[in-house]
Amino acid sequence: MNSFKVSDHLQILSTQATTSIKDVIAARGKPIWYQLYATNKFEVAKHHVQSAENQGATAVAITVDRSGGRNQETLARLQKTDTRQCSTCHDNSSLAASQRSKPMYEGVDLSGLTNIQSSAMSWDYAKRIRDATKMKVVLKGILAWEDAKIAAENGFDGIIVSNHGGRSDEAGRSTIESLQEIIEVSGSMPVLIDSGFRRGTDIVKALCMGAKGVAVGRPYLWGLGAFGQAGVERVLELLRTELRAAMQQAGAPTIKHLVPAMVKHV
Amino acid sequence: MNSFKVSDHLQILSTQATTSIKDVIAARGKPIWYQLYATNKFEVAKHHVQSAENQGATAVAITVDRSGGRNQETLARLQKTDTRQCSTCHDNSSLAASQRSKPMYEGVDLSGLTNIQSSAMSWDYAKRIRDATKMKVVLKGILAWEDAKIAAENGFDGIIVSNHGGRSDEAGRSTIESLQEIIEVSGSMPVLIDSGFRRGTDIVKALCMGAKGVAVGRPYLWGLGAFGQAGVERVLELLRTELRAAMQQAGAPTIKHLVPAMVKHV
Amino acid sequence: MNSFKVSDHLQILSTQATTSIKDVIAARGKPIWYQLYATNKFEVAKHHVQSAENQGATAVAITVDRSGGRNQETLARLQKTDTRQCSTCHDNSSLAASQRSKPMYEGVDLSGLTNIQSSAMSWDYAKRIRDATKMKVVLKGILAWEDAKIAAENGFDGIIVSNHGGRSDEAGRSTIESLQEIIEVSGSMPVLIDSGFRRGTDIVKALCMGAKGVAVGRPYLWGLGAFGQAGVERVLELLRTELRAAMQQAGAPTIKHLVPAMVKHV
Amino acid sequence: MNSFKVSDHLQILSTQATTSIKDVIAARGKPIWYQLYATNKFEVAKHHVQSAENQGATAVAITVDRSGGRNQETLARLQKTDTRQCSTCHDNSSLAASQRSKPMYEGVDLSGLTNIQSSAMSWDYAKRIRDATKMKVVLKGILAWEDAKIAAENGFDGIIVSNHGGRSDEAGRSTIESLQEIIEVSGSMPVLIDSGFRRGTDIVKALCMGAKGVAVGRPYLWGLGAFGQAGVERVLELLRTELRAAMQQAGAPTIKHLVPAMVKHV
Repeated sequence: MNSFKVSDHLQILSTQATTSIKDVIAARGKPIWYQLYATNKFEVAKHHVQSAENQGATAVAITVDRSGGRNQETLARLQKTDTRQCSTCHDNSSLAASQRSKPMYEGVDLSGLTNIQSSAMSWDYAKRIRDATKMKVVLKGILAWEDAKIAAENGFDGIIVSNHGGRSDEAGRSTIESLQEIIEVSGSMPVLIDSGFRRGTDIVKALCMGAKGVAVGRPYLWGLGAFGQAGVERVLELLRTELRAAMQQAGAPTIKHLVPAMVKHV
Repeated sequence: MNSFKVSDHLQILSTQATTSIKDVIAARGKPIWYQLYATNKFEVAKHHVQSAENQGATAVAITVDRSGGRNQETLARLQKTDTRQCSTCHDNSSLAASQRSKPMYEGVDLSGLTNIQSSAMSWDYAKRIRDATKMKVVLKGILAWEDAKIAAENGFDGIIVSNHGGRSDEAGRSTIESLQEIIEVSGSMPVLIDSGFRRGTDIVKALCMGAKGVAVGRPYLWGLGAFGQAGVERVLELLRTELRAAMQQAGAPTIKHLVPAMVKHV
Repeated sequence: MNSFKVSDHLQILSTQATTSIKDVIAARGKPIWYQLYATNKFEVAKHHVQSAENQGATAVAITVDRSGGRNQETLARLQKTDTRQCSTCHDNSSLAASQRSKPMYEGVDLSGLTNIQSSAMSWDYAKRIRDATKMKVVLKGILAWEDAKIAAENGFDGIIVSNHGGRSDEAGRSTIESLQEIIEVSGSMPVLIDSGFRRGTDIVKALCMGAKGVAVGRPYLWGLGAFGQAGVERVLELLRTELRAAMQQAGAPTIKHLVPAMVKHV
Repeated sequence: MNSFKVSDHLQILSTQATTSIKDVIAARGKPIWYQLYATNKFEVAKHHVQSAENQGATAVAITVDRSGGRNQETLARLQKTDTRQCSTCHDNSSLAASQRSKPMYEGVDLSGLTNIQSSAMSWDYAKRIRDATKMKVVLKGILAWEDAKIAAENGFDGIIVSNHGGRSDEAGRSTIESLQEIIEVSGSMPVLIDSGFRRGTDIVKALCMGAKGVAVGRPYLWGLGAFGQAGVERVLELLRTELRAAMQQAGAPTIKHLVPAMVKHV
């Protein structure tokens, strides 16, 4: 978490995190956003959102693109070659047991909950969550302009164009391919984007096209896995360095100078 | 065959099958379709179709895309490295001998038959077959919209867009590339599709585009080769799991909710 | 040469051939075409053409696409690893010496000739050659529709769309990419094609698009190198088999039934 | 330098060169161009330009596409495997020290200079440089037609379409992709091009599209690294040979005969 303090990057903390929102905010020295995985049980989602708000999160990003199960082939293949004892860290004897180490699930009534997928996402559900909080409400996982349009018309505070890094479905469109048509229908609603951003030169293109922000997931985790906090800081520094260089090459002194004409679709 | 019972998939049983139609229907517990390889001798085709009907098949899929011989290079290359005695299972001493183990050929007069390719396919021939049966008649192997149009205008009960898995000719178009223009001219005639479908994410796209069904050939045979009946069941289960996940990601609670706008052509 | 007799393929015999035109015609049992490499010296070209006519060739294909030298990198690289004595077969001590074993160069006055490239090709030169013979005159090596148009307007008997198998320049367009626009401007002038045709499925596409014939070079030479005459016969047989199969798949009983609608440009 | 004399190629000598402009001109026997890397300190740039003019350079190419730092990953990766002592040749103890062996930096006041990137490029800066010299002024590193248009409107003597060989930013467009739209807005201002030209067949395409000249960087350096001066001469000879062959294939007796119709965009 200190990495984000050093570099002033925003953190969107997941429901699955092993550190509480208030601890992350304390470490960062500034508020963060909260990423909700809303299950089919509205009461659980409501609990999560209100807890996040109470701990100081300023926005909730409702995950809407992890609704189905998936065929995790890489996991299935490599699990057999992993000789570590999974149970040392993960207690998967029950859903309740598997959530025990996650601060967001503390004190939550898990009865009636069969999985922690966002399996019951609907516009109605999203609105009910919005009604349950004073935080800004952002929809994370929009990929179709039709959905972006509905979000804008219904006054959501923003969307994150995302395909969950291709983890839910990698046979569809990439987010950068969808961005332009989404920007066109989103009006004044801020549009952020993630999935597949690995370089500053990737980031600069999305910003040129009108994204208000770009989020990354795997890059900083790779840094974390390799070098711990120093690795996270270095990854974020590389992204900033590359973004600054790309902006200079494009002749843009500030983010505001990045415009669509600087990107050519082929 | 039991695999298809377990998972409620339809079977289209080939003329070359080593199990009779009535036995497969008994194992499945429901009717199946019959896939006809019609030779140049109409009497043989007529015998096959009427036998299938008598055994309980509800539809005949007339193969129309295996009309020519082909240059089977992989077979020619690998045959030399196969040390098994072919004659243990296959008696290729004559065409009649090679058909002896196939129930559909029982009692068929093979005189005047030089091969079992669908070498004499014409619209007239297809209509004569239709006149010889009360089963639904489906044309399997349509790839050109011009042919789909003729099939619809002549009242055939359906078509299967297919290039025979690329086995007859792999230098032409893929079926998914042809599907849209075929759907456009097919009116109310049901359009099914096969060839190259390996994932639920492949299947969902064809269904979005308007296909009424998707057929697979090699995937379940790979399962069969590797694990027998369990392998077939697992392959079919994977396809269903992936299809369900892809539908949830697309936001479609049922097959009917899959629409063309969910697929983007690039 | 006997290979071409067996399979009734036309031979276009090069100026560089080591067998004379009349011997090839005798072996084939039918006339052949003559392929002219016209140098900067018109008298040599005239001699070649008249000799070909006298020996019984019915058409001359004037090579127009080998006008420049080229950077033969593969030759340069592999020559070093070839331990054979080149001089056993090739006497490259002088241009005259190197032509000594070629029947077409018998009795030709080579004075003033610096190379045997088609280095002086112009429309005027081609017309002078036409005036020197009663054979049909075909231009081999047209790749631009502008040139096809000029050829048609000037009454040449045909063209062969060719880039010399990519041997002169492989950074340009392929012949199949140029074919359609060339057909469009060629009117009644027959258009043949070569370069890159390796399969019957390649050939069928050019015929669908309107080519009157397809020529091959390397395929039969590969057969020759591997198995001698039997190899050439087998290669040609494969091409015929594949072409016939491709025609059947397309539903075309004869070459005349092959039409542009059977090919889709993507 | 003698290589350029032999083959009559123009040299554009960089500010970083280890040989002085007057020595290169003496070796070549003809004037050369000077390539300016203008720092944030205008006085340094002015000194460089006036010195180049005094030594006999006839044009200055202002580098405008190396404004930002970059993430030199290949360097970072391979540096660890290089066992040579860098300090034997390079004194990187200070910016001043690192410039000591470069003739163009002789007698330059480096105070206030933090790097030698072209970090402060603006239209105003470029015009001030123009005002400081009587040499022709060319902008090297234009990639957007918008910039080409401004250059033409402001009367610059020419531009070099360049992305610095992809060394500053390789995530953008290639120069050949930008060339056509740049030519269209450049009017009578000469347009040159570089970046990625490796073959005569590459060069011929740019010339067809309207470039007045093509520059290369890495090819002759590869020749230099492998065979010294002989390698440079051979590389340049190959480019000329290939260009001549490509022109002959295109049917163009001179550079002026190369026209846009000879290149097809796909």
